[in-house]
Amino acid sequence: MTGLALDETHAASLASWVESANDPATDFPIQNLPFGRFRTAADEPWRIGVAIGDQVLDLESVGLIDSQDMNRLMAAGAASRRALRLALSRGLRRGSEAHSPFAAGLRAQSDIEMGLPCRIGDYTDFYTGIHHATTVGKLFRPDNPLMPNYKWVPIGYHGRASSVGVSGHSFHRPLGQTKHADEAAPALGACRRLDYELELGAFVAVPNALGEAVSIGDAEEHLFGLALFNDWSARDIQAWEYQPLGPFLSKNFASTLSPWIVTLEALQPFRAAFTRPEGDPQPLPYLDSPANRAHGAFDIELEVWLQTPAMRAAGNSGVRLSRSNFRDAYWTLAQLVAHHTVNGCNLQSGDLFGSGTLSGPLADQGGSLLELSQGGKRPLQLSNGEVRSFLEDGDRVILRGHCERPGFRRIGFGECAGTVLPAPRGD
Amino acid sequence: MTGLALDETHAASLASWVESANDPATDFPIQNLPFGRFRTAADEPWRIGVAIGDQVLDLESVGLIDSQDMNRLMAAGAASRRALRLALSRGLRRGSEAHSPFAAGLRAQSDIEMGLPCRIGDYTDFYTGIHHATTVGKLFRPDNPLMPNYKWVPIGYHGRASSVGVSGHSFHRPLGQTKHADEAAPALGACRRLDYELELGAFVAVPNALGEAVSIGDAEEHLFGLALFNDWSARDIQAWEYQPLGPFLSKNFASTLSPWIVTLEALQPFRAAFTRPEGDPQPLPYLDSPANRAHGAFDIELEVWLQTPAMRAAGNSGVRLSRSNFRDAYWTLAQLVAHHTVNGCNLQSGDLFGSGTLSGPLADQGGSLLELSQGGKRPLQLSNGEVRSFLEDGDRVILRGHCERPGFRRIGFGECAGTVLPAPRGD
Repeated sequence: MTGLALDETHAASLASWVESANDPATDFPIQNLPFGRFRTAADEPWRIGVAIGDQVLDLESVGLIDSQDMNRLMAAGAASRRALRLALSRGLRRGSEAHSPFAAGLRAQSDIEMGLPCRIGDYTDFYTGIHHATTVGKLFRPDNPLMPNYKWVPIGYHGRASSVGVSGHSFHRPLGQTKHADEAAPALGACRRLDYELELGAFVAVPNALGEAVSIGDAEEHLFGLALFNDWSARDIQAWEYQPLGPFLSKNFASTLSPWIVTLEALQPFRAAFTRPEGDPQPLPYLDSPANRAHGAFDIELEVWLQTPAMRAAGNSGVRLSRSNFRDAYWTLAQLVAHHTVNGCNLQSGDLFGSGTLSGPLADQGGSLLELSQGGKRPLQLSNGEVRSFLEDGDRVILRGHCERPGFRRIGFGECAGTVLPAPRGD
Repeated sequence: MTGLALDETHAASLASWVESANDPATDFPIQNLPFGRFRTAADEPWRIGVAIGDQVLDLESVGLIDSQDMNRLMAAGAASRRALRLALSRGLRRGSEAHSPFAAGLRAQSDIEMGLPCRIGDYTDFYTGIHHATTVGKLFRPDNPLMPNYKWVPIGYHGRASSVGVSGHSFHRPLGQTKHADEAAPALGACRRLDYELELGAFVAVPNALGEAVSIGDAEEHLFGLALFNDWSARDIQAWEYQPLGPFLSKNFASTLSPWIVTLEALQPFRAAFTRPEGDPQPLPYLDSPANRAHGAFDIELEVWLQTPAMRAAGNSGVRLSRSNFRDAYWTLAQLVAHHTVNGCNLQSGDLFGSGTLSGPLADQGGSLLELSQGGKRPLQLSNGEVRSFLEDGDRVILRGHCERPGFRRIGFGECAGTVLPAPRGD
């Protein structure tokens, strides 16, 4: 990290000849330019595109890439990505000489299907949300909510890459073993405590070789950008299975990513200081740097919305369940990269990091129903009269995120939506 | 599982015109025919081969495959694999009419380099060694060594695929955070309790779609075969990091696979009954079937050997540290597939399952140094006068495995060897 590195692509005064990108409410102004993969028919290969207003620009059609391999584009690194961003910004801004070829490369977002943004090799889920860790810890260990390692180790574990899907998908409520305290034996049945987790996903750009740690100073050069991420969780399955090796079937039935990766470059104006509460230990030297302290964090506003089947039937787009901010995470992205590789573990282009559930410090800022309903003990009253302790069949959860700062254009993440289908059998 | 399904390829009377395959000591008689990937120069792509005695048969050169994609061969399923096995057996046996073209497709194993047998998408490590779980559990929880879920849930967790390497490699002793009980804060340093874990790895053949569970009756159709697997572990890093989400950096710095996958077909004569000790709960219905009880287990003898630098200097090929048998695992491979998919999780061709550490019931049958040295309290006396509590720099660990049964040819797994290099910095 070498300063905020703002350049002409961040200027709030920039407007695009794609008029929908100038709408103050759009997630995708010309200052954003997030990357994704799209196709116009189910039998076509995925193509790399960049979102601009309500359109997507096909990068190959304007000669800016020579391969549709997003992982390869990620591996090319930050300098090449910045050059691409500058070319896109110049081509899409008002008065551009490239207006005509770029206009020919546009497709309406309403006419395309979005896929996963890349091939995910390994997926690691972290646990950087200290308010989540504390609230959930209290449910299991009232006297000792945070483990002694929490403020020293950026806790993480490996997740399942094969079952990560893209926004808009549906998945079946999982079956699994659960055991109630008053029963002698567990039983197989449909999950009764299905939950979402509000997370951000970070994608690895440049790989590191096995055995070669990435220093915190170099860490962000190994990242591409961020998307919204929902780490769906079966709380009853998790409670019975997770000792001693961690969550497994309670998590790997489905996860959901938003389709657009907002690059670190687009997020530069929204960097924030990384600070520790008074009295907390300072990070060990391999997790500490002046730049990380000065602007290692990101000011990203996050929201969770729920649309129940009854709301859908009534034409109601849903209710907001909570808000939080990525700034409240206990560890920065640079710290996650430095920690993940300190033992020599090799990261590969396209690998996914989950941030862990991003809850705010207040009780109504929980990033999961487990927190908002206090483990199911205090069901949420929804504004249409319904109640929820955990998710019901047909529920759709939508994550949203955006960045705002005076003097800069608002940029957004689009949405990350998934819908719960009934369990596959009559259990 | 539909019976032992023995056929002409299993007959002990079969001999090969590849004379080294008829040596009673070879791991690779004509009854084995394990699959791997090899190349003859570092700049060549990997080619699929089958081991026969001290040779490897290039499958494409004899027209038996039309692609060098092992994952695709895996996805083709059991019927196609059985037909391929039959063609190989007939071509390699004495008196074969295909002697001449097959002989032209042979390479000496001493002249080739072996790679990972396939692209590993997701890697899941299970915990089926109940003797390991009990012994290790006692070190952490003397009064309560086995968790209440152990005899109900085939415990597993996701591991790191990117750092799985192939036999013959070396890796650096990892750095990581550790904290001693008498210290106020953790510190970063080189692992001081580096260990191996004796495991078998199972490879997924036919995939299942997300949301579609695989029944225990169909489970083995989704598996390809087995290899030896060493899940290197940094015990001091693990002790500090693993709560509450499981092992992470203590495992993902390196794992080692043997290069040859012994197919389920080759292992058919060595099937064994799956039984539970008197008084243990019977598996839930989704983990139970008559076939699984009759022959769900595999009788595979396993060994761990250690070659220290002093032994290497003295021309000593190493000492055997322990022996155990896969038959003692608490869960069968079919149960692992049924459990992994019961929530709808999708397995993909080439995915790897680790068995967990396979220790025997006796104290000298531990599949790790943690067990054999009782957590480091009773160092092992090696026959050359050296002692070991945990691994030292330069130590090479070699796993071996084979199957024997009266009336059948012995088949083996080759070896799975890895060498510990010093930590990368002066910590």
